[in-house]
Amino acid sequence: MLLSSMDQIQSSSFARYLDGEFWEIKDAFRDAISECELFQSSSYELTLDQSRDLTAERLYHLLRLPFMKEHLRNQELQFTGMFAMTERGHGSNVRGIITEARYNQSTQEFIIHTPSEDAQKMYIGNAMKGHYAAVFAQLIINGESQGPHCFIVPIRDQNGVMWPGVTTTDMKHKEGLHGVDNGILIFNNVRIPRENLLRKFGSVSADGLYSSPVLSKSSRFNAMLAALTPTRLGLTVQAMAAMKLGLVIAVRYSHSRRQFGPKDQDEVKIIEHQTQYLRLMPHLAAALALIFTTRYAAGLMDDALCQGQDLQSNRALQALVAGLKAYSTWENVACLQDCRECTGGMGYMMENRIPSLKCDSDVFVTFEGDNMVMLQVVVRELLTQYTKLMGNNLVMGLIRNWTSSVSDSLRTSFLGFNVDKVGDLMFLLKAVSYRERVLQRSLASRLYTKVEKNKDEFFMAWNACLHHVTTLAMAHIHRVTLEQFALAVRECHIKEDRALLTKFCLLHGTSLVYQERAWYLEHNYLTPNTSQQIRSQLLELCRSVKDDALKVVDDFNIPSCCIQAPIAGVPNPRAEWAFYPQPQYPSSTQPLSKL
Amino acid sequence: MLLSSMDQIQSSSFARYLDGEFWEIKDAFRDAISECELFQSSSYELTLDQSRDLTAERLYHLLRLPFMKEHLRNQELQFTGMFAMTERGHGSNVRGIITEARYNQSTQEFIIHTPSEDAQKMYIGNAMKGHYAAVFAQLIINGESQGPHCFIVPIRDQNGVMWPGVTTTDMKHKEGLHGVDNGILIFNNVRIPRENLLRKFGSVSADGLYSSPVLSKSSRFNAMLAALTPTRLGLTVQAMAAMKLGLVIAVRYSHSRRQFGPKDQDEVKIIEHQTQYLRLMPHLAAALALIFTTRYAAGLMDDALCQGQDLQSNRALQALVAGLKAYSTWENVACLQDCRECTGGMGYMMENRIPSLKCDSDVFVTFEGDNMVMLQVVVRELLTQYTKLMGNNLVMGLIRNWTSSVSDSLRTSFLGFNVDKVGDLMFLLKAVSYRERVLQRSLASRLYTKVEKNKDEFFMAWNACLHHVTTLAMAHIHRVTLEQFALAVRECHIKEDRALLTKFCLLHGTSLVYQERAWYLEHNYLTPNTSQQIRSQLLELCRSVKDDALKVVDDFNIPSCCIQAPIAGVPNPRAEWAFYPQPQYPSSTQPLSKL
Repeated sequence: MLLSSMDQIQSSSFARYLDGEFWEIKDAFRDAISECELFQSSSYELTLDQSRDLTAERLYHLLRLPFMKEHLRNQELQFTGMFAMTERGHGSNVRGIITEARYNQSTQEFIIHTPSEDAQKMYIGNAMKGHYAAVFAQLIINGESQGPHCFIVPIRDQNGVMWPGVTTTDMKHKEGLHGVDNGILIFNNVRIPRENLLRKFGSVSADGLYSSPVLSKSSRFNAMLAALTPTRLGLTVQAMAAMKLGLVIAVRYSHSRRQFGPKDQDEVKIIEHQTQYLRLMPHLAAALALIFTTRYAAGLMDDALCQGQDLQSNRALQALVAGLKAYSTWENVACLQDCRECTGGMGYMMENRIPSLKCDSDVFVTFEGDNMVMLQVVVRELLTQYTKLMGNNLVMGLIRNWTSSVSDSLRTSFLGFNVDKVGDLMFLLKAVSYRERVLQRSLASRLYTKVEKNKDEFFMAWNACLHHVTTLAMAHIHRVTLEQFALAVRECHIKEDRALLTKFCLLHGTSLVYQERAWYLEHNYLTPNTSQQIRSQLLELCRSVKDDALKVVDDFNIPSCCIQAPIAGVPNPRAEWAFYPQPQYPSSTQPLSKL
Repeated sequence: MLLSSMDQIQSSSFARYLDGEFWEIKDAFRDAISECELFQSSSYELTLDQSRDLTAERLYHLLRLPFMKEHLRNQELQFTGMFAMTERGHGSNVRGIITEARYNQSTQEFIIHTPSEDAQKMYIGNAMKGHYAAVFAQLIINGESQGPHCFIVPIRDQNGVMWPGVTTTDMKHKEGLHGVDNGILIFNNVRIPRENLLRKFGSVSADGLYSSPVLSKSSRFNAMLAALTPTRLGLTVQAMAAMKLGLVIAVRYSHSRRQFGPKDQDEVKIIEHQTQYLRLMPHLAAALALIFTTRYAAGLMDDALCQGQDLQSNRALQALVAGLKAYSTWENVACLQDCRECTGGMGYMMENRIPSLKCDSDVFVTFEGDNMVMLQVVVRELLTQYTKLMGNNLVMGLIRNWTSSVSDSLRTSFLGFNVDKVGDLMFLLKAVSYRERVLQRSLASRLYTKVEKNKDEFFMAWNACLHHVTTLAMAHIHRVTLEQFALAVRECHIKEDRALLTKFCLLHGTSLVYQERAWYLEHNYLTPNTSQQIRSQLLELCRSVKDDALKVVDDFNIPSCCIQAPIAGVPNPRAEWAFYPQPQYPSSTQPLSKL
């Protein structure tokens, strides 16, 4: 069932704006996916092996597309690899990994070894098929460790024959991601040539002398972790994709399905129920905010890489991406759960796609860095910035800052009392920014007291503030998403599109402030009155965009073969009972006039 | 792998208290399950057909147990049935079902018919195997409908031969509950004898005269819906079971797994991380609250049934159960999500049980009445009570009530300012009760204004208040759970157990008030100071119960074969890599002394 003809409708200006400058290659991918048989059906009925094979076939198909070859100068795809960092004993705390790479000078080899059960490499994707692994291990020369480094270790040859000393175990069934084979790697004194150490952060001469451009072990480790930054940003893109898919399905069904209504009249579309639009619309606004924020982060990363910067020198970018990863993946989990519930029994059926989206993306909050750890990465960077700002005299800094905090509070509480301003984007931007600033200041002050004054052990002091830490990190990323959304509104030059984005941007900001209204009340930034007004505003904004939502999800431009769900208007002969025709966005009426 | 010997350890007094008066039959079930091969392995690798067969075998095994035969006086289990209410066009709004049951006087039969696609009975459990269906259809005599009634319709005989005119379609794959075959029933002029109308709420004489003990169609419909009350309570029990299972796994793993720690010292157990205990402990407190609240509701239901009352006359009980269904199933979804995330990658592996728990119980928020509808059932009852209380003069009532509201607010805001009292259970009980009362009063007033003064159409007025409605319903059920928990504490006569329950009860109340602290601040019930104190109190209570949590989850007395998860200390040869020995509750130390 090839539906590409349906998908090749001319995109709207809004859709182009959402796609950004790379819309052409995105369209090429959409066409390629829509035209290829491999992407035409769901895979939930397959066995594990079949799922894994299908994933590989899909991947090879995409990598062999003409425009991919051109862009990536692709090899013949003879070999595939895997990334082997996590160990049984150390997932989040990778610094503690214990796989060993001992240098053997006589043979000029490294001996890769798993000294204990806790050292087994775990959850390694492609472990059952891949040929080479990038293995993180403690580099040991003459009995002394130089900290974790990365080594290329052969796992199996093209005929599947295992490299001597390597064992793999299939971890088999997971909640989702059935197409990925996660497994365990065990190394029993595996010999690899000296050249297989990736030398960016440290190298070993033939006669066993270690040298590194990065002096301290700690800095070296951080530099290596910076390599995870692009992957984390990729995960944010995946979380966004899952959210968008879920929203297409839930919004379309909500505009098709009718239930309850005024006495003796037709039942209303379920999107008309206040709780339904209140549950779905803030997620749609967040999805839009994420589109622009991710593009911003990707731009920074491109710039850094084009200027030949090492990512590790750009700690602010690392922190931004870590925060974005945490926010986007949690927002995705919450969004898909609401999509599931808002589509009722239909949303529970596999044919309608939402269950597998949920199961596949659930682990995003965990992998490539557990979200709780990501938030701590964000705050470490925020506090570093803060300390720099304050100079060495942290106490004076705190006092100086405290003064500005008081005037800040006075100035902003004026805004708080000024009822007319609550609906203003500037009010919302100031609010999220104020919150971040105050949380940052108070955290710095608490940590200072614990560590410097009370001489508490640092981990204990940090842990006693962990709720504060994670709250600050979320406040930070909230602020960034709202700012980037606001910038994207300003830079949009088509009037109708800008009007539409403005509503969703206001909604996103209102939703962020509403979620944290308790904090604003505690800090007298909102009065009880303005807080209640924020709630009314949230309800009203959600109501006002519920019809526009149809246009927005259509403009995500997701190919029908990816949507799959019959309740979203994609016919499926296996589930005719689930089919609802795709609701049409009423272009004749002018929903924008409501603005 | 029969683990019954492990499970037959003498239960503690705390475990007995959690089980309540029926602990003996619960123990008998636990033993029966632990001793039976059918329950010894997980079922996620089975095909749909195998899963369904296994479910049937398990069910038959349990129903044939000696003590079940004795209690249920069981038949030979020749026939199984199904409950056919939901239609394609009407799920939540069952009043609108359109399946027809026309009386044919000449043959003294009913003709059961599906007049359109929207009339197809959908999501019917056991549709592919069952022999009889309890079908809800519009009873039509001489072209006039008497509203929905329930009919027994043969579906297939013992050899699987379909009854003439009946068609079933398999809906196949769902997110979970693979052992249940949900299907579609279509009736093409199916003839059944007159006696197959269930006559409790209406009967038809041979010559086609309709009579009913319930006069209005609307009351009759409500009476029929009351039959769902016990099933809904059963669903609450299932949601609790899923929560308890998730918590056993997450709490044990959190006490086994170590990650991060003070410099140059052992890593700490992950339960020591502030965010970890803050995420898990409130769910454990809620699970305990649900145990006692469910028992309270079950007691009321038993009393009603023993006194021969029809459940429909006990609308307060219906509302309580509807609210409990919504609260428990949402709390379960949130709890399992946190259990999944707090167990990291391990929690994503099927062998560790949490994924299938999530997928199976996700739909609980939808079926047996969508939670959003359940909350509206609660509020309809609350408003009915309110109107009765006010008499006919609603306006005078509102004014009178408003006065008492003001004094209430004054009295309670005194409490709000009195910092010492925040940690007191009485303060928390008063807070949740005050919130419910104010929300109820303000909703009544808003609806009165819209409907009586502004003459808004009722559905539209109600829908404009829907967020308020659902907020009130949750406030109501929150209050009930805290009250029932507090009563259970008072009635517990073993000192140590009462001390333990007291901590968790305080935690539950603190967590409820913390969640809604914005509302309390808006209503000046909490000051900014006391609100921040509530947060500190929440953190401190969670910290103080994190070790007790091990005892509590052990005292849920769940058989190992149900826990399954290797990370919770249950060995599994298929996933040795996931095994963590069961952490022991340190009975030698005296964690209760911290009180």
